[in-house]
Amino acid sequence: MPQNLQILLDNRPQGEATVNNFRLVTTETAPLQEGQVLVRHHYLSLDPYMRGRMNDGKSYAQPQPLGEVMIGGTVGVVEESRHPKFKVGDSVVGMGGWQHYSVVQGDALGMLRKVDTTHVPLSHYLGAVGMPGVTAWYGLVKIIAPKAGETVTVSAASGAVGSAYGALAKARGCRVVGIAGGKDKCDYVVNELGFDACIDYKQHADAASLSKALRDACPNGIDGHFENVGGKVLDAVMLRTNAFARIAVCGMIAGYDGAPLPMAVPSLILINRMKIEGFIVSEHMEVWPEALQELGQLVATGKLRPRESVAPNLASAPEAFLGLLKGKNFGKQLVKLI
Amino acid sequence: MPQNLQILLDNRPQGEATVNNFRLVTTETAPLQEGQVLVRHHYLSLDPYMRGRMNDGKSYAQPQPLGEVMIGGTVGVVEESRHPKFKVGDSVVGMGGWQHYSVVQGDALGMLRKVDTTHVPLSHYLGAVGMPGVTAWYGLVKIIAPKAGETVTVSAASGAVGSAYGALAKARGCRVVGIAGGKDKCDYVVNELGFDACIDYKQHADAASLSKALRDACPNGIDGHFENVGGKVLDAVMLRTNAFARIAVCGMIAGYDGAPLPMAVPSLILINRMKIEGFIVSEHMEVWPEALQELGQLVATGKLRPRESVAPNLASAPEAFLGLLKGKNFGKQLVKLI
Repeated sequence: MPQNLQILLDNRPQGEATVNNFRLVTTETAPLQEGQVLVRHHYLSLDPYMRGRMNDGKSYAQPQPLGEVMIGGTVGVVEESRHPKFKVGDSVVGMGGWQHYSVVQGDALGMLRKVDTTHVPLSHYLGAVGMPGVTAWYGLVKIIAPKAGETVTVSAASGAVGSAYGALAKARGCRVVGIAGGKDKCDYVVNELGFDACIDYKQHADAASLSKALRDACPNGIDGHFENVGGKVLDAVMLRTNAFARIAVCGMIAGYDGAPLPMAVPSLILINRMKIEGFIVSEHMEVWPEALQELGQLVATGKLRPRESVAPNLASAPEAFLGLLKGKNFGKQLVKLI
Repeated sequence: MPQNLQILLDNRPQGEATVNNFRLVTTETAPLQEGQVLVRHHYLSLDPYMRGRMNDGKSYAQPQPLGEVMIGGTVGVVEESRHPKFKVGDSVVGMGGWQHYSVVQGDALGMLRKVDTTHVPLSHYLGAVGMPGVTAWYGLVKIIAPKAGETVTVSAASGAVGSAYGALAKARGCRVVGIAGGKDKCDYVVNELGFDACIDYKQHADAASLSKALRDACPNGIDGHFENVGGKVLDAVMLRTNAFARIAVCGMIAGYDGAPLPMAVPSLILINRMKIEGFIVSEHMEVWPEALQELGQLVATGKLRPRESVAPNLASAPEAFLGLLKGKNFGKQLVKLI
């Protein structure tokens, strides 16, 4: 069996996460048991939810155990199989973690799924045609449920979730406005992703200023919003919501480090009769087939051209992950493992 | 035509509302036109939403115009009628305002409704079998939608909305826990209204302390909450919510005067995959018949025995209203007009 390179969670962050919370180790992969599959990972996905798992406190999921391989989505190729459903050379997506190889039970529900790379590049199954894409789909279609002509917004618009959200919203006849950090990202969101407008939050010191920019970009107000960030951005959006606005809450990245970020004017929930709903997409597996089909078609037809930010090897994963938390990535953050 | 006593909004509050914002005047009622009805009011309802109308800022409703009769729900008896649907002596509920008499178009939709006082006292049509009762019904049935065995909570539990909420929740097999101000109110909520427990928020200086008391009163966590107050109470409840908790937001009374009150830990919306939804009951007229029927039965069968706090005459309405905003009332706040 091949030697494996792994990154473990070594210790929990005190405040901000650092590279010293992680540890790189070399191990041996165990020989396959009957029913198991050995997968060689090609790409690892880095996602904001991982920061939450590094804490010990109450969250929607179990904390990442110390001394174990960091959790994470992976795409790869079957290198050895003792399960009849998988054969050597199959392209698969799974939750292989921060490591080169994983040994998976072939029949464990949702742990390993064969994918077709004819029209969709393998790496996109970690992004637009994977968990981030379905996340955008669920928030837009199931929570916001926009009508054609409505205005919908999204924070972290240049990222994996944001770019899928934009394509899905345009397909439904919405005006879609992004919020992102920096001119390059905003240009990309408008010129490459086809958003109607994009606001650079870094140009705005507070929620009031950002809210004014949103007013210009959303002359008919905001009917739906997808929140990946929290804090100032959410406050600014809430100030521009129309009556009966819907907000899907998928991330509160700004609050993971340090003190919780308050919501400035919750009375707007009443004033505008808003609905605010948090969700995690892994609890809604029933929508995945429908969502993945639409997302795959958008990619195959060129209507969704997601951008990727690729770290060169496993050792660079911690630094790339910390950059992601600070918004340094540009598009879906991946780690190349082969 | 009879002489009318009226209270007008004289000027808008600067910060806290005061009795000087109001003005008592005597006027003549105009002779009835064809299709109109003259109603002698027996009771005026005082409600927190009126404070919002006194401001000029953006809210879900038009501001109360200066120099006009304060808006308000009334019950009374038809004294003269030029509309075939109403005859002298009919008991009616309407939006007559802070005055002794009103002249109403008999066919204006939702402005005047005949009620049956055989089993339900007239005044209750302003409370348990009126707008506050339907408000509780909508929040509980349509937003929280509890299953039997779930735990649901409500702030301002001894008030008109809270007492109806308790009876409706018990009828659905829930554990229902109130939050109210003072020992007398809490005793009443448990002993008279039949709540399983009630917490005196005045005994708790901050959200953390209140949250601890909620943990003891809600050993299985909180599945649904009806928010009449906002601020510290909402923060404390959010800390005790279960996954997929639903919060109906109907009032943010604590924020009307002065600066907006922030929500301390909005990331709980994501962590617990909560749904928070604001509503105003007048936008959901389709539920009124079903809700009023259930509420009327609960009152008629003694399962809901709402308490009333009655100010003696129109001149005392401003002071009673300001007391309501400070939680000084005990049960549904009315003004007796005859």
